[in-house]
This record gives sequence, C-alpha cells and structure tokens, in this order.
Amino acid sequence: MRTLFAKENWLLLMLVFIPVALVLEYLVHASALWVFLASSAAIIPLAALMGRATEQLAERLGEGVGGLLNATFGNAAELIIAIVALRAGLVDLVKASITGSIIGNLLLVFGASALYGGVKFQRQQFNRTAAGLSATLLVLSATALFIPAIFHLIVPPTAGLAERTLSVEISVVLIVTYVLSLYFSLRTHRHLYVGHAGEDRDELTPTASPWKALGLLVASTAGVALMSEMLVGAVEETAAVFGMNEVFVGVILVALIGNAAEHSSAIMMAGKNKMDTAITIAVGSSIQVALFVAPVLVFLSYLIAPEPMDLRFTTLEVVAVGISVWIMSMIAQDGESHWMEGVQLLAVYVILGLAFYWLPTPG
Amino acid sequence: MRTLFAKENWLLLMLVFIPVALVLEYLVHASALWVFLASSAAIIPLAALMGRATEQLAERLGEGVGGLLNATFGNAAELIIAIVALRAGLVDLVKASITGSIIGNLLLVFGASALYGGVKFQRQQFNRTAAGLSATLLVLSATALFIPAIFHLIVPPTAGLAERTLSVEISVVLIVTYVLSLYFSLRTHRHLYVGHAGEDRDELTPTASPWKALGLLVASTAGVALMSEMLVGAVEETAAVFGMNEVFVGVILVALIGNAAEHSSAIMMAGKNKMDTAITIAVGSSIQVALFVAPVLVFLSYLIAPEPMDLRFTTLEVVAVGISVWIMSMIAQDGESHWMEGVQLLAVYVILGLAFYWLPTPG
Amino acid sequence: MRTLFAKENWLLLMLVFIPVALVLEYLVHASALWVFLASSAAIIPLAALMGRATEQLAERLGEGVGGLLNATFGNAAELIIAIVALRAGLVDLVKASITGSIIGNLLLVFGASALYGGVKFQRQQFNRTAAGLSATLLVLSATALFIPAIFHLIVPPTAGLAERTLSVEISVVLIVTYVLSLYFSLRTHRHLYVGHAGEDRDELTPTASPWKALGLLVASTAGVALMSEMLVGAVEETAAVFGMNEVFVGVILVALIGNAAEHSSAIMMAGKNKMDTAITIAVGSSIQVALFVAPVLVFLSYLIAPEPMDLRFTTLEVVAVGISVWIMSMIAQDGESHWMEGVQLLAVYVILGLAFYWLPTPG
Repeated sequence: MRTLFAKENWLLLMLVFIPVALVLEYLVHASALWVFLASSAAIIPLAALMGRATEQLAERLGEGVGGLLNATFGNAAELIIAIVALRAGLVDLVKASITGSIIGNLLLVFGASALYGGVKFQRQQFNRTAAGLSATLLVLSATALFIPAIFHLIVPPTAGLAERTLSVEISVVLIVTYVLSLYFSLRTHRHLYVGHAGEDRDELTPTASPWKALGLLVASTAGVALMSEMLVGAVEETAAVFGMNEVFVGVILVALIGNAAEHSSAIMMAGKNKMDTAITIAVGSSIQVALFVAPVLVFLSYLIAPEPMDLRFTTLEVVAVGISVWIMSMIAQDGESHWMEGVQLLAVYVILGLAFYWLPTPG
Repeated sequence: MRTLFAKENWLLLMLVFIPVALVLEYLVHASALWVFLASSAAIIPLAALMGRATEQLAERLGEGVGGLLNATFGNAAELIIAIVALRAGLVDLVKASITGSIIGNLLLVFGASALYGGVKFQRQQFNRTAAGLSATLLVLSATALFIPAIFHLIVPPTAGLAERTLSVEISVVLIVTYVLSLYFSLRTHRHLYVGHAGEDRDELTPTASPWKALGLLVASTAGVALMSEMLVGAVEETAAVFGMNEVFVGVILVALIGNAAEHSSAIMMAGKNKMDTAITIAVGSSIQVALFVAPVLVFLSYLIAPEPMDLRFTTLEVVAVGISVWIMSMIAQDGESHWMEGVQLLAVYVILGLAFYWLPTPG
Repeated sequence: MRTLFAKENWLLLMLVFIPVALVLEYLVHASALWVFLASSAAIIPLAALMGRATEQLAERLGEGVGGLLNATFGNAAELIIAIVALRAGLVDLVKASITGSIIGNLLLVFGASALYGGVKFQRQQFNRTAAGLSATLLVLSATALFIPAIFHLIVPPTAGLAERTLSVEISVVLIVTYVLSLYFSLRTHRHLYVGHAGEDRDELTPTASPWKALGLLVASTAGVALMSEMLVGAVEETAAVFGMNEVFVGVILVALIGNAAEHSSAIMMAGKNKMDTAITIAVGSSIQVALFVAPVLVFLSYLIAPEPMDLRFTTLEVVAVGISVWIMSMIAQDGESHWMEGVQLLAVYVILGLAFYWLPTPG
C-alpha cells in the first residue's frame, strides 16, 4: 500500500467489474462462480484506490498521524472482507483469510519481489536491523496463533470458556504490542524506517486535495464493502463447484484478492532495487494482519457475529504460519536477497498451497 | 548473580520474613497462603545472599575455580527448592519450576532488561559471538526437553523403562556438554566472555574474608532450605485457594521467587548499558538450569524421591521453551537490543503465562 | 565428495572386504551379521572411489557440466543403496536412511569437522552468504518432510490417494528447486561458492585419463550395487540379532556407511582450516539428499517398488530433521565456528540417536 501505480489505466479499467458484478448478481442472476469472479476482480482496483486515498491523506496529516492512518487502514480491504464474512457466520473462512494473508505476504509477495528484483540485480540489500525487528514481531505473531491451538489440544472439551477467554486476552496483548510497535517505528526509532519512505514519495502522483482524498476513501470503502458482500455470498457455492474446501479458498483465493495491491507495489519496488520498501510492505502487512486485524476481528465478533471468534486456527494453518515465519526470518537476517531466495519462498508457498488444496472437504 | 546490590537496605529488611514465616507456621498455624507468601518473601533475600557469598568466594579462588563455583552454585536456590519438592514427591512442580526458570530468565528477565535499558539508551549492543553460542546451547536445551516428550507420544504405554533410560542418558549428555561449555568459556575461549566480567568487579562491595563468605554461604543455604520446606509444604493448598493449577504455580510463581536476584541484577546492569552482563545473567541462568540443574535433579531423584523423575515435560511446557528459545535466539543474533525487543519478549511471556493460568486443574 | 584422500593405502586395503563379503555370503553362508559387516566395510571404499571418479570426470568436463555431474552423482552410493532397498520393498528403511543422511551430515559430519578443526584453530570462518542460502534450502527441505507428516495426521484414513498425490507434487517442487539452485550456484552466483573449490583442486592427485575415470566410475558403481544387495538382504536379520529396530538401523547405521567418504573428507578439510569446503560437503550433501535423492526415489518407486513410496516420514524423523536444521542454521548464520559448536552438534546427534535406538521394534 505504500506506493501507487504510476500508470493506472489498467486500474481504472478494472473498475468496470463493479457494474459487471452488480448486473450478474441482480439482473442476470448468474451462477455463484461468475459473481465470485466479477466481485473479486472489482475488489482489486477498489482496494488499490483505498490504499491510494489513505496514502494521500496520510501525507497531508504529517508523519505522526499519517503513519498511524497508514498503519490502521493499510489492510482495510482485508478487514472489510473479513467483517462481512464474520457477520455471515463464516468464521473458518475469516481465519483462513488471516492465515492466507500472513503466509501470502511473506512467501508469495516477498518471494515474487525477491525473484523479480533478483533477476534484475545480482544482489539486493536492505536494513538488517529493521528486518530483524520485524522478524521478531513475526515470531510473536506465530506464538499468538500457536498457543490457542496447542491449548485446545491439551484441555478437555469442557474448557470452551477458558479457550475463549484466553483468545480475548491474547488479542489484548497483541493490540497493545502493535500500538507500542507503532510508537517505536513512528516515534522513538523512526530513523530505522524513514530512509526509504522518503524516497518513495517522489514517485507519488501530485497530491490531490485532502477533501478529494477523503471522498475517494469513503467511496472506495463503500465499494469494497458492497463487493465483499457479493464475494462472501458466492464463496461457498463456488468452492463446491470446484470441489475445493473452504479453507483453501480462504487461505489462497480470498487472501490473494485482498492483497493484490500489496503484491504489485512490492514487486514494482523490488524491480527498482528498493528492497527496504518491498520488505516493509510484505512483512509489515503480515504483522498488521496478525497483530491488528486478527484481534480486532476477535473483539468485533462479540458484537456482530452469530457466535464469537477465537484465535484457534487449524493445525495446518498454524504449521503454515510457523514455517513461513521461520524461513522469512532466516532470509531477513543477513540483510540481502538473491533471486534464489525468492524461488525458495515461492516453493514453500506452493508446497503449503498444495497441502491446503488436498485437504478433504468436510461432510 | 554476577553483581550485588549497591544499596542493600531493602535486602536486609526482607530478612525479617524469616521469623515471620516461622511464627506463622509454628506458632500461629496460619493458613497455607500466608506461610507461602512469607516463606517466598524470605527466600528472595536469602537467595541473593547465597549469590553474594558465592561471588565473593569465587573472587578469592581465582578465575578458574571461582568461575566453576559460580557456574555450579549460580542457581543453588532453585536447586534447593527443587530438591525439597522432589523429596516431597511433587515431580510435576519440580518440572514446572525448571520450565519456568528457563522461560522466565529468557523472556521476563531479559525482556525487562532490554525494555528498561532500551528506554534509557536508544540502542544497546552486546557481543554477538558469545550470544550466538549461548543461543545454540539453548537450542540444545530445547532439544533435550523436546525429545522425551515426543518419544512419550509415539511409544506404547508399556515402554516406561525405555523412557526412563532415555531420560537418564540424555541427562548424561547434558552434564557432559555443560562441563565442556564451562571449559570453553572459562579456559579456551575466555576472551569472548571476559571483558564485562572485569568491569563489573569494580562495583562489588569490598571483599570480606573468605571465612566470612563461607559462613554466609552456609547460613544462607540453610535458610533457603528451611524456607523451601515451608514454601513447598504450603504450595498445593495455596494453589487450591486461588483455583490455580500446580503447573502455573511452578512455572510462574516458584520460578519468580527462585530467580528474583537474577531479575534485579540483570535489569540493573541493563540500566548501566552493560547488556553483555545482562544477557549473560539471563541466558546463562537458563542454560545452567537446563544443562546442569535438570539432569542433576534426574540423578538425585533416584536417591531421594519417592519415584524417579524423567525429562518428560508437558506439551505446553515444551512448546513454551521452544518458543522462548526461538525468539531469544532471534534477538541475540544481531548483537543489539532496543526497547521494543523487550516489549516483545514480555508479550510472549504474558501470552505463555495466560495459557498456563487457564490450564484446568486436574481432578 | 569434493576432495580425495591424499594417502589412500587404507582405502585400497578396505577393498579386500569385497571378496570377503562374497565368500561369506556364497561360500560360507555365514550369518547375516557377518555379511552385513563385510558388505558395509566394502561399500565405504567403493563409495569413495565413485566420488573420486566423479570428481576427475567433472574436472575434465569443465565447471558447468562437471559441477552438474558432481551435484548429481555426489550421493550416488546412498542412491544405489536406497534403490536396492526400495526394490526389496523396505520403504521404511529407505526413508530412515534419507533421514539419517540429512541429520548425519548436519550433526555428525559437520559437528566432527567443527570439533576437530576447532581444536586446532581458535576460530574458523566461512562465507556467511553461501552458508545462509544453504540454511534456507535446509528449511525448505524440512518443510517438504514436515507437510506430508502433518497432512497425514489431519486427514481421515480414506485420504490415501490425496496423500500420495501430495507427495508426488511436493517431489516435483523439490526437483525444480534443486535444478534452480544448481543454476544459482554454478551459473549466476558462482562467485559465492567458487573460491574454495579452486583451492582444493591443487590437492587432487594428478588427473587420470577420462576413460580411466569413466571405467573406475562404472566399476565402483557396479561394486556398490552388488554390495548393497548383500547389505540390504542382511539388514533385517542383523537388526533382529541386536534387538534394534529397522528405523535405527536406517537412520544411524546405513546412513553412516553411505556417507563415510563425506565424513573423512569434511573432517580433513576442517583440519586444514578450510571450513567453507567442510560446510559445503556436509550441508550440500544434506540438501542433495532432501531435494534430489528423496524425490527421485519417490518417482522411481512407481517403477521399481512393490508399492509406491511417499514423503511421509515418522514423527521422530520429522522432529529430528527439524531440530538438526534449526541448530545448523543457527551455527551457520554467524559465519564462524568454534570447537564448542562441534560439541553441541554431536550432543544433539547423540540425543537423537538414543531416541531412535529406544524406539520399540514393531510387532
């Protein structure tokens, strides 16, 4: 979300999928698959526009508040999709999209960035200290997912209340840690992160008026919400058509749609040898999902969902996050990347994707 | 244990809890909770005095024997508490206090040190090589706990003898490795560790006569043993009063009491920007518990306990140690710390503590 | 396999075990134990000769094709033993020897190298970048073993076809990654690996004619195949004699025999302070087994084995590989080694070996 598309014709073109989706759903009453495809395609440019509007507002509001805005709305599209799914009671899909967002950003987004950048440049470097701190936050994220799953394994089935309470308490710890990490990166240790952000700014299109940006933000948010309703409504039927299980759809498909903007931004930055920005987008987005989006959804679930959501993920989800964090932290630690590291991240993504794909559909 | 309290009035004051505990137990016959609190409060200054006496004797005996003395008696208070609990047949409590000592030193002691030091100093550095070697020893420690737990999962219930034999053999491997690691750090590669130790020495109070130190060591050891008897005797009833399970009491409470001296020393050192000393205290103490205290307790259990103790820890304990070692090794590897890393370690400690707290009490 | 024995008298002497094994098997009809010992002893020099012939051919063929040859035939002896066992339907033994080869190279070969080299030299250094990339490939290898085991745990018993398909697909990912890693190390980033290889070359005995080398390769390959038949035929009975389970035999004994040449080469290089070569032999051999030998065996199993082989390893095997990769990656990351790191690797090897030893024999 940090950067924007210099040439955005394709972006504007994709907005045509909004009316297409509406027509398919309400006029033609097309099958779920077509609605799913059209609404997915419509969310991609809308999410990008949300990111763009956030970016422009952030710039106007200055580093402090602006950084906060970016940090809070950076994954707003994913949050909206998840809220819609949560209201529909699709808790497993929500969890799967959280997992998918974490592993997708680490393995697919950064993997593709390292590969694309590495093909152009023999060796790419980034700030080891910032990357190391992010890697440690990733371990914290993995812990937060790991503990409820392990806890579920060892307590008797009657301990449901203890499990839910534990999830809520862990969510509080995560949010507090997230706020402190913002204070760290935006205030006390800004210099570790600030270099690249400054450079990127030049490439932004000339800033629009803040009111225009605010209007764009409101409109694109509404659009994402509308399209998410249709996406979520069509997801179960679409999965059934292809014989795919809900978890695979959430981990791979929904996560891809929600993160499409990050994908293209990070890869573009890697192609310009700005690996610091690429790694910030990919890893930062994962951290934001784990430390901010996930606990917010736990809290919201008590208000809007048919039943509360906890932080207990499936075994394969926990393992996938653990492995992704492990390999990412190893790649981050030496402060440089090569194309082969991109290949390795993508290989792990493919292996995990295959495992999710072959999971039997329940029932 | 490396350093002492410059102003020790509060330390001497806390010794008043020795008579208080005795009065509560034998005269007033107070409830278990009060005995637990008073004996806990009494152990803290006694453990500190033990450490101080060891330190002073070590200084007299020169680097070689002195280092050995420090390495052997560094966690003597924990060892004594564990021996008393072992004799009482509270094997699960002993194991829990081993776990708690390892994760407490890594997450709570070093986390608080990194946070406190990091608030005062923008960036704190320590020797990467020494920290890296310690981190690898931690992985070895985690392995030694992991293997018996996994082994228990995969063998049939009839393999009890194989399980016990495996634990004893692993204990031998751990002790041998520990002795070799002392030879490494005190002899062949002393230069990696020696720098900070020299600096700290200036801050010690003028050395007392060795006889006085020996007398202090004997007296404080006897005091710890006495108070441990009362602590252990009261622990089960106290846990029941609060609805806490025995594992939580061992992992969090008993481990806190046994390590209180390390806590204050390490944090004080971090506040003086001596992160090498802080990390040596925290990580070194964890390694000592895993590679020396734990196997010694396994051996002793064959002599003094109602039934032998093995190295099979519960799933949550194994996971907690694994996660602690993982995050600590990531923080150690770049040779510098920031306050946010302290926050992260503390956050993991809180999450693990919550999981232990919510474990159902058996029965 | 990179280097050869300067004085090879002992090597030639050991060839006497070929006729000894043949006599024991076909003339004396000796018990399985003696056949096992003799054929094992015969494989060691034959594997070394295979490596030597490959090396000499590789040198003639130039860096590109030669490197490829080395990379493909580097673990040919292990591959041949595994193929023979696969044809005999001993799938568990094959998997165990894969596991044993990975952990043996990481823990035993590199551990012994670091210890031996570290006793002679205070501190040994190696290229961090190359070691880091290898460590990441190791994490990928661990993932490839981990996922099928986890998948098996969570799917119902009826999902056998999905399990086999997943294994085949993962094998394809591994082979593709392996080929790309060769392209990386032999082409685009040769400079990261090339330094030490150049130095070693001086020590090779004067190169024989390529025809002689080819002849030697063919003859030694035939010899390994013949001796493997006898080894595999005798392994089950031998294990029964000692009350050892098949997995222990595969993980420890067969893996030791197949890797004996790597052991002596790596240790010799460490003794000459050429840690880059030692680490390349040890880690490279592990990677080759995981990313090349294992998937090739999966594919071959569909052609030659009584039933197809998948990538599902036992829990203890998965854990052993995971721990080995973890500790090795920590040791690799700082680019230097000390004797104590060798001790730690060996300690982990002993602990894992003990666990495998105490596994109950099925039935």
